[in-house]
Amino acid sequence: MTTADTTPGDLQRILATAEGASTAWALVPAAGRAAALTSVADALDGAATEMVPLAGEETFLAAGRLAGELKRTTFQLRLFAELLADGGYLDARIDHADPGWPMGPRPDIRRVLEPLGPVLVFAASNFPFAFSVMGGDTCSALAAGCSVVLKAHPGHPRLSAAVGRVAVEALRAAGAPDGLLQLVYGTRAGRDALADPRIKAGAFTGSIAGGRALFDVAASRPDPIPFYGELGSVNPVFVTEAAAAARGSDIVAEFVASYTLGAGQFCTKPGILLVPAGSEMLAGLSAAERPAAAPLLNERIHSGYLASLSGLLEHDAVDSLGAAEGAFGAPPAPALTVTTASALLADPEGLIIECFGPSALVATYRTEDELLAVARALDGQLTATIQGEESDAVAPELVRLLAKNAGRVLWNQWPTGVSVTYAQQHGGPYPATTAPTSTSVGTAGITRFLRPVAYQGLPAHLLPEALRDDNPLGVPQRVNGRL
Amino acid sequence: MTTADTTPGDLQRILATAEGASTAWALVPAAGRAAALTSVADALDGAATEMVPLAGEETFLAAGRLAGELKRTTFQLRLFAELLADGGYLDARIDHADPGWPMGPRPDIRRVLEPLGPVLVFAASNFPFAFSVMGGDTCSALAAGCSVVLKAHPGHPRLSAAVGRVAVEALRAAGAPDGLLQLVYGTRAGRDALADPRIKAGAFTGSIAGGRALFDVAASRPDPIPFYGELGSVNPVFVTEAAAAARGSDIVAEFVASYTLGAGQFCTKPGILLVPAGSEMLAGLSAAERPAAAPLLNERIHSGYLASLSGLLEHDAVDSLGAAEGAFGAPPAPALTVTTASALLADPEGLIIECFGPSALVATYRTEDELLAVARALDGQLTATIQGEESDAVAPELVRLLAKNAGRVLWNQWPTGVSVTYAQQHGGPYPATTAPTSTSVGTAGITRFLRPVAYQGLPAHLLPEALRDDNPLGVPQRVNGRL
Repeated sequence: MTTADTTPGDLQRILATAEGASTAWALVPAAGRAAALTSVADALDGAATEMVPLAGEETFLAAGRLAGELKRTTFQLRLFAELLADGGYLDARIDHADPGWPMGPRPDIRRVLEPLGPVLVFAASNFPFAFSVMGGDTCSALAAGCSVVLKAHPGHPRLSAAVGRVAVEALRAAGAPDGLLQLVYGTRAGRDALADPRIKAGAFTGSIAGGRALFDVAASRPDPIPFYGELGSVNPVFVTEAAAAARGSDIVAEFVASYTLGAGQFCTKPGILLVPAGSEMLAGLSAAERPAAAPLLNERIHSGYLASLSGLLEHDAVDSLGAAEGAFGAPPAPALTVTTASALLADPEGLIIECFGPSALVATYRTEDELLAVARALDGQLTATIQGEESDAVAPELVRLLAKNAGRVLWNQWPTGVSVTYAQQHGGPYPATTAPTSTSVGTAGITRFLRPVAYQGLPAHLLPEALRDDNPLGVPQRVNGRL
Repeated sequence: MTTADTTPGDLQRILATAEGASTAWALVPAAGRAAALTSVADALDGAATEMVPLAGEETFLAAGRLAGELKRTTFQLRLFAELLADGGYLDARIDHADPGWPMGPRPDIRRVLEPLGPVLVFAASNFPFAFSVMGGDTCSALAAGCSVVLKAHPGHPRLSAAVGRVAVEALRAAGAPDGLLQLVYGTRAGRDALADPRIKAGAFTGSIAGGRALFDVAASRPDPIPFYGELGSVNPVFVTEAAAAARGSDIVAEFVASYTLGAGQFCTKPGILLVPAGSEMLAGLSAAERPAAAPLLNERIHSGYLASLSGLLEHDAVDSLGAAEGAFGAPPAPALTVTTASALLADPEGLIIECFGPSALVATYRTEDELLAVARALDGQLTATIQGEESDAVAPELVRLLAKNAGRVLWNQWPTGVSVTYAQQHGGPYPATTAPTSTSVGTAGITRFLRPVAYQGLPAHLLPEALRDDNPLGVPQRVNGRL
């Protein structure tokens, strides 16, 4: 098992294998795909005592957090197995022939979602299990019936290889085709794979710069393909005057816990907190006890974080808030900076930016109209949060404005911690993602790797089983427009 | 009412208005949007005696065809009004808080599809009603709650203005916000609008070259947006040996009717017909009576068609089939060319190409294995058709291969004529479209202009109505994963 950069020759073999595996896997019934996902979940749970320490060595994340992340990862595999059993994700539609259809006689047309083909998934650094080798996109793609080429993240190569080994063995034992999941290493291999015509979709979680470069590769192919990039977000939190007055100290404590969680290395870290000018919350934020400094994931993230933070502090409108010692240490101590809402509005490009690591920017506002103005000035966000009281007059308009630019709007909760559920939405307009109509977390994520195909006038024996009148799979069917 | 090119200053005003109209329209309840669509349908039906002759003057299409197309267009508006009444398109999902959720306590999360914002629609030349001012994408976008900026096609500017006037009046009378639908004219205005940050999605029906240029504009924006381009397709037809033997002469007659329909100016025109070498179908195709020459839509399409056809005839492996007189006349007489399946396989880029106008390429195959080989060699297609017998051993594998590359697979029917239904799929991998996961015809098209938003922990009065437990709109809700 090597984690050296994949050679061009090896990459060609891997892509050819992925194409064959995709064809074979698409023919495996949903129940077989579900069983294979469950087998992988069981195998990874069984390997936890090997995996969690290895992840800790490579990422410096705490064992408890990593064990929880692995649990989330295997839960996700089992949840998608349930989704396959239900079959509603196929969106099966049957329109019987109708000579009386108002626009003219209607032929028999039936439509179902089918797998896109081999998918290239770029693993993230900050979730070595949940957004890596067997993470959300791999799980969705395999569930959808696609093969996966996984570009391993250089931050945890040994863990990637180990998870890959366990997963591949479990898939093989479950009867999945050889090469259904293959790993590649190295920037060049990733880019070359994305440009290859055998790859039919890309998925990525990481930085704006890295994700945009890959989006551009996918979009500039002779045959452009869907590219689902989850890039960056500042996840602003809006504290209303009433909430600050009613429970400012609780909000301070919860905010500090949220922005420092995992040393601030979450794409959903609350990066900006808007509080009333003159509120006691400022003194509270200044004095609040912060967790101890913790090492960041890797040297590139560490240096990038320090550069972002020092750039912010050089801004005329920004100061430190509270203890500043150790903010540039190794590891860096959690930090806070402070500015005003009017400064955010005057220079959104300079101040409303992601700073990936253990810091956040507090912005004071004079009137709640400034909250609305900041909401209007936002780029696309993964999340936006209101800390408010039910009687807040500003809340309805604020919710409406935030929903225009965010994938998820929270009320009196915190954006870190993205539950895997049926209704979850992890996405948003650019730069939160490159695909605002899609999600990378939750069961709705499966549709990103599916495409609709209609069948017109086919005899029953040539139709996909999900579209037959006798419905042998027992899937939900929308017949003549009615479910 | 001017149809002169939109000036940069006017475009700025139009985009600002579109942004405001989008905000207002998104707040109009679905029932109000449905009523407005129905009003437009009624108004257009009422204006048919004015519209159809005007369309005929500008496009040279026959009055009967145009009247049918207008009927289709107004039917589509009413069908989308029904879709709004049903509410299933919202994909409303409610996950109640669950402390026992296996990956850890689950918060209350609710998800619904919301409008993307102002949409720019580029009208097509060949469907002056159904894919133009009030065509499928405009209908979908308005139904979804988006405002529309419509780039009129230069092939029918007066009709565009007239339809726009009737539609805008009907929308206004129905209480829709001013500027909900606005027309722009000219290539530069279209490109500038597509690059503008106020436009949140683009939709296009037209040529590969034109569509790709616009896709590149959308993808290279600082904030890339979804671009739904429907570009080109050769729509191959595979006639099995058994079908040729059983009903070759019927297939010949139906094929000639289909490839010459509307002077071959359909994106679903069957452009390649695969028949057994030595079949009597060849003599039949050669001798079959073809419709009279008919003028093409405009000079650009006419000259493009002649260039494609002469390029094809210059190919070493291509000959004329049957009468060739008048093929390059004005108007051009319907033509057929002939080659072999092995030539298609040897030079797919030279021979499997769209030739937009009244001609098609017949390709003879020696064995049915060659049918499978051609199916494997295809680029993305809007449609692929099999003329077969139920006993055909080649059929299952052929269906499977065609479904990998086509949006719609037909059996013993013809691809021209795309019914607007619940199960319709008009799309396919590139170059058929730039968005293989989407459709531009049928009720499923509404989702291209919607994006999911999740709400976490919101009190009932701040939630969208579709997500409330008391379900005041009566829409289908998926609660804890169950519909």
